[in-house]
Amino acid sequence: MIGALSIIDQTQLPGSLCIINLENAEQVYAAICNLQVRGAPAIGIAAAFGLYLAMRFSFAKDKATFLFELTQKQRYLCSSRPTAVNLSWALARLKQAVINCSTQNIETLKEVLLIEAQAIEKEDAACCRAIGLYGLSLLNDGDSLLTHCNAGHLATAAFGTALAPIYCGLEQGLELKVYCGETRPLLQGARLTAYELKNAGVDVTLLCDNMSASLMAAGKIDSVWVGADRIALNGDTANKTGTLALAVLAHYYNVPFYVCAPYSTLDTVASSGAEIVIEQREPAEVTEMWFKERIAPPDITVYNPAFDITPVELISAIITDQGIRYY
Amino acid sequence: MIGALSIIDQTQLPGSLCIINLENAEQVYAAICNLQVRGAPAIGIAAAFGLYLAMRFSFAKDKATFLFELTQKQRYLCSSRPTAVNLSWALARLKQAVINCSTQNIETLKEVLLIEAQAIEKEDAACCRAIGLYGLSLLNDGDSLLTHCNAGHLATAAFGTALAPIYCGLEQGLELKVYCGETRPLLQGARLTAYELKNAGVDVTLLCDNMSASLMAAGKIDSVWVGADRIALNGDTANKTGTLALAVLAHYYNVPFYVCAPYSTLDTVASSGAEIVIEQREPAEVTEMWFKERIAPPDITVYNPAFDITPVELISAIITDQGIRYY
Repeated sequence: MIGALSIIDQTQLPGSLCIINLENAEQVYAAICNLQVRGAPAIGIAAAFGLYLAMRFSFAKDKATFLFELTQKQRYLCSSRPTAVNLSWALARLKQAVINCSTQNIETLKEVLLIEAQAIEKEDAACCRAIGLYGLSLLNDGDSLLTHCNAGHLATAAFGTALAPIYCGLEQGLELKVYCGETRPLLQGARLTAYELKNAGVDVTLLCDNMSASLMAAGKIDSVWVGADRIALNGDTANKTGTLALAVLAHYYNVPFYVCAPYSTLDTVASSGAEIVIEQREPAEVTEMWFKERIAPPDITVYNPAFDITPVELISAIITDQGIRYY
Repeated sequence: MIGALSIIDQTQLPGSLCIINLENAEQVYAAICNLQVRGAPAIGIAAAFGLYLAMRFSFAKDKATFLFELTQKQRYLCSSRPTAVNLSWALARLKQAVINCSTQNIETLKEVLLIEAQAIEKEDAACCRAIGLYGLSLLNDGDSLLTHCNAGHLATAAFGTALAPIYCGLEQGLELKVYCGETRPLLQGARLTAYELKNAGVDVTLLCDNMSASLMAAGKIDSVWVGADRIALNGDTANKTGTLALAVLAHYYNVPFYVCAPYSTLDTVASSGAEIVIEQREPAEVTEMWFKERIAPPDITVYNPAFDITPVELISAIITDQGIRYY
């Protein structure tokens, strides 16, 4: 039994490295909503532990009640962020594990939830390495890469997704140069990607999102690497807002555009991007810097989608732990 | 004779409307460097008054000395920002006016500088209206426009350049919807364009620069309107960083992309964009918000070009006070 889930509060980076302990479902829900934990795989892992934390003190006397409560908590945690498919996938996997063990007593079922959450975390680390090695086969020594948002170790249990090929390349002595877009409005690129790559000793350069076009026009980018929050059956990909613009630019400048994600990010329901719901977030993320300093006039109307959909025709390949699929 | 040049300190908007008085060339130079006055036409006007302010107390006893001092001050003011062509154009025009009146005495030559600076300001206002009326012929009632940075009245003596067609449309009762990109790193879109359009009663929506792709993909943008800091002989256009990305996106989504500028922005020297020098600005603009709050790890390498070059093949038309040129 674990007492709490310890996470890095990513909203405090790069200023300070704060570890916070989440002790119940409500705290996990809030941490996901507030982006203290973020990145599709990390959200899935956090939600899985959240479901265990929600159920470990259940007073349910019979299994039907336990399963009813579990389903309630599953739905609750699943509503913390609507777009990430790993979230619903991880929660459904825990529920299925309980159903598969339904001959066991309730205390054992609580243990099953913990074991399954730990399994998801462990598998994610292996998954990151597999993505990294497949992705590495698409890189050459001396390449300059562009990435967006944070799809690194802060978003996963290990090497990350889009950054995994870079970490694998580093292990093998490759010289890689990485440009990272700051990723407005919440600056995950500036705060997290620049932070983790610099700490790892990677040659990293930060830029504003709107500056990648001139880099590509100057022939300075060999390939673009992004993660994915959800991938439809046809390959259309939902990822952090700004991804679509990079894909269009890469297409125009003939730069390969790669999406990296755990196989579990592949949606089995949405047949194309048109069916993916895009979360709209609050205006203050755009109009106020850190909710401290107002940078826009009062009452201004704001367009603030958390994600955009990159159509499959703009994607060169999708790299998962199961291999590379070219488009 | 005027005592000082009064300008709105644009770095304080939209929080407060501060008027500052510039009394000598050094203060004008600093105001241009620090972006307290910005926008190519406004920089030209400010520099012209700056040259007058620099020379009005000249102790030169003969015209050769006066012209020598004038040339020194002209070069000094011209170095405040390297990319804007209006700056060198306005300063050269004042010098030429003095040369044309070289039979006059020195006190009269000082007056000539003031009269010429005032003429440039007045002509700019007429120029904005002409751009607005030509641009208006490309708009339809109910259109949704996207703009970048600030090419409005804060950047000029009157209606602005890229925003002039919107103001002319407003006068004629057209219903227009305007989306404005916030324009990182210095947020001229959020701070200035959103401010001036909202004050004028325009239906304006603010977005982060990386969100325009999803708007265009959804068919929500009828045309893109930007200003220009410098236009090469072949039509290649230097404008605020982020303009090139919008041009590529507009091209991909078949949205007309219009550049608006005074005819004086057309360069007579650079034959293409390759010859235009792009100013690189300091990293802190990207890594610190308002030079107060650090948003990136210490010592991170930064790519921070002030402008990018949009090649003429991505431009639908250039609108000047002399008319519309289609490409």
